[in-house]
Amino acid sequence: MSTTPSPSTQDVATDLVALCKAGKFAEAGEKYWAPDVVSVEPGEGDMAALKGLDAVRGKTEWWEANNEVHGVEIDGPYVNGDQFVVRFKMDMTPKATGQRTTMDETALYTIKDGKIAEERFFYGM
Amino acid sequence: MSTTPSPSTQDVATDLVALCKAGKFAEAGEKYWAPDVVSVEPGEGDMAALKGLDAVRGKTEWWEANNEVHGVEIDGPYVNGDQFVVRFKMDMTPKATGQRTTMDETALYTIKDGKIAEERFFYGM
Repeated sequence: MSTTPSPSTQDVATDLVALCKAGKFAEAGEKYWAPDVVSVEPGEGDMAALKGLDAVRGKTEWWEANNEVHGVEIDGPYVNGDQFVVRFKMDMTPKATGQRTTMDETALYTIKDGKIAEERFFYGM
Repeated sequence: MSTTPSPSTQDVATDLVALCKAGKFAEAGEKYWAPDVVSVEPGEGDMAALKGLDAVRGKTEWWEANNEVHGVEIDGPYVNGDQFVVRFKMDMTPKATGQRTTMDETALYTIKDGKIAEERFFYGM
């Protein structure tokens, strides 16, 4: 029996950034989220720490349904060991306000066995 | 007996970025490194993980003595809980090569009691 080795953190980082640059955020998640992925936003709300593929997928679907993205500028990936950072600068309009704005944030991904074990988001001040 | 409350992660983040934007990297470290600070670079070398103020100060002094910085562009801080990310894009010349280059990296800081407990650097690919 042969097993395919997991892609390296650098391989995942490079491919994930390429998918995001092509606007394929949900596809990037589907390809790399681990079944027990944890997604951590700043703050204390219900969405602050979500666990498991269904919850994280649900957040992404909610976000995509409630925001219109006009363009995204991406810097990175920046790699150290089993983690990497990506910076997203997004030109977008939240449907709730209708006001076009720029969202500037970074994400820290922790990779285990070629999958995203944790994604942690940091908001620009 | 009164004690002064520690500055918040956001306060440290804002001040540290302001100092770095003014080129005061060593001063930012002296102000915020905890006595048992850990500094983690990518890779496996001697400098990969340094522990304690003297070691981390020594790395910074070594770096400043061996590189000439022409300018630095800083994005952030990006905050989540007790951590924040800063992106550094540095126009510099390593004295060893004499070749002017751009270093693009991000740093993830973990704050405890108003001090840097850990700084972890990620290199652009």
